[in-house]
Amino acid sequence: MKRQQLIDQIKLKHSFLCVGLDPDAEKMPAHLLEEEDPIYEFNTRIIDATAPFCVAFKPNTAFYEAYGLSGVSSLEKTIKYIKTNYPDHLLIADAKRGDIGNTSTMYARAFFNRLHADAITVAPYMGSDSVKPFLGFENKWAIVLGLTSNEGSHDFQQQKVNGRELYLEVIETCAKWGTSNNMMFVVGATKAAMFGEIRKLIPDHFLLVPGVGAQGGSLQEVCKYGLNKDIGLLVNSSRGILYASNGPDFAEKAAEEAKKLADEMKSYMS
Amino acid sequence: MKRQQLIDQIKLKHSFLCVGLDPDAEKMPAHLLEEEDPIYEFNTRIIDATAPFCVAFKPNTAFYEAYGLSGVSSLEKTIKYIKTNYPDHLLIADAKRGDIGNTSTMYARAFFNRLHADAITVAPYMGSDSVKPFLGFENKWAIVLGLTSNEGSHDFQQQKVNGRELYLEVIETCAKWGTSNNMMFVVGATKAAMFGEIRKLIPDHFLLVPGVGAQGGSLQEVCKYGLNKDIGLLVNSSRGILYASNGPDFAEKAAEEAKKLADEMKSYMS
Repeated sequence: MKRQQLIDQIKLKHSFLCVGLDPDAEKMPAHLLEEEDPIYEFNTRIIDATAPFCVAFKPNTAFYEAYGLSGVSSLEKTIKYIKTNYPDHLLIADAKRGDIGNTSTMYARAFFNRLHADAITVAPYMGSDSVKPFLGFENKWAIVLGLTSNEGSHDFQQQKVNGRELYLEVIETCAKWGTSNNMMFVVGATKAAMFGEIRKLIPDHFLLVPGVGAQGGSLQEVCKYGLNKDIGLLVNSSRGILYASNGPDFAEKAAEEAKKLADEMKSYMS
Repeated sequence: MKRQQLIDQIKLKHSFLCVGLDPDAEKMPAHLLEEEDPIYEFNTRIIDATAPFCVAFKPNTAFYEAYGLSGVSSLEKTIKYIKTNYPDHLLIADAKRGDIGNTSTMYARAFFNRLHADAITVAPYMGSDSVKPFLGFENKWAIVLGLTSNEGSHDFQQQKVNGRELYLEVIETCAKWGTSNNMMFVVGATKAAMFGEIRKLIPDHFLLVPGVGAQGGSLQEVCKYGLNKDIGLLVNSSRGILYASNGPDFAEKAAEEAKKLADEMKSYMS
């Protein structure tokens, strides 16, 4: 997906919501477990219910790999379902991959050519040759971990390198390897005050923002510091939407939560 | 696998070789491509041929994910083959995973409980809660990326944090979260001179060392600076062994290369 298509979708829907598809059998409605493929059934119901209120879907690969071959099959089917029925939604594989050059190339082919994801999240620790292989695919995106939403971001990301925090070094360095047309950055919603410094380095890039909802980040704060002229944000919610209810009404409740977030987003866009 | 079992195997075989199982259809012997599952056929032949000369096998997940479901199936079958036929070999899933706490837990379950790997490589950028979930499994190992063998290790790992290189900060910090019984570190063979500083921080930990062979690292240098009282090294070779020949004699040639490395290792162990 091209950058302009994404911006158009956001403006059309007045939403920059990304729905994280992290299916967990322990939290899913019990009646779905009787289905042949509970994960796929759960996902398609969530996708249909929330698609009007979001512009992106983000399956996290861990939640599929945990179920082995059948989980990977559910992931493939889910992606196919989205690409077929909602081709205007950005499909992000939240895989946090990264390896030496020839190996990153294998991952890029796996996610872009075989799974047909539009974007993949990438871990930057191994540097340039681990990130660059994800940048050579037309209309595809590498979404590099910058400042993550979790507690552990203090351990290394917020340590000082060359007089500033490592995550700023990572963002500025990685930004040079790509453009705002093939690269985004993950910046956690729990770190809203830090969006200001980040926007000085990358005013144009899209940021994928996890951490609103279950992790405690504030959408208002994220928008205050993170919005740019093209919106430039994709704010993700997973658990808050997926598990709004674990009864037969789970999809309706998920839609309600997604709509609530989209309505709030709309208020900050104007 | 317990630490002592690994040490016993190394001493029994006079080898600390790890064979990297990175099957690439473009480099594999052409006659194998006619098999029902060429990757599995290739792997089992390589495993049988090299098992006498190595103490560990390390499939890199990228090379399986690149082939979609059938690749993941080949990986599962390969691991089952090793666990059944060579239970004394350490099975390392080279996956470089790492995510927020609840997600890392899903990965840990996927690789330890479902795939029955003994160890998994872990990316440290997201900090404590991304690494710790891999440490709570009996006789299982997290192998954290410290200093990698690739060119890109200069970008961030070798930047100064608190007056010393980030990789030293990562190694010392992560070492506190586990013990030398459930944690190892990846340190590239191309950086042999840096093993001295690393050994000061973690004299007892095992190091998984890629980069010998195709990437240009010297086994002699690695041993000079990296060996400890329990050997403490697992030196990996992938391409140099797997693709020693792409003819019908590929398995014999792979065995020859593995034996060559093991013989050299033996000379440094005495």
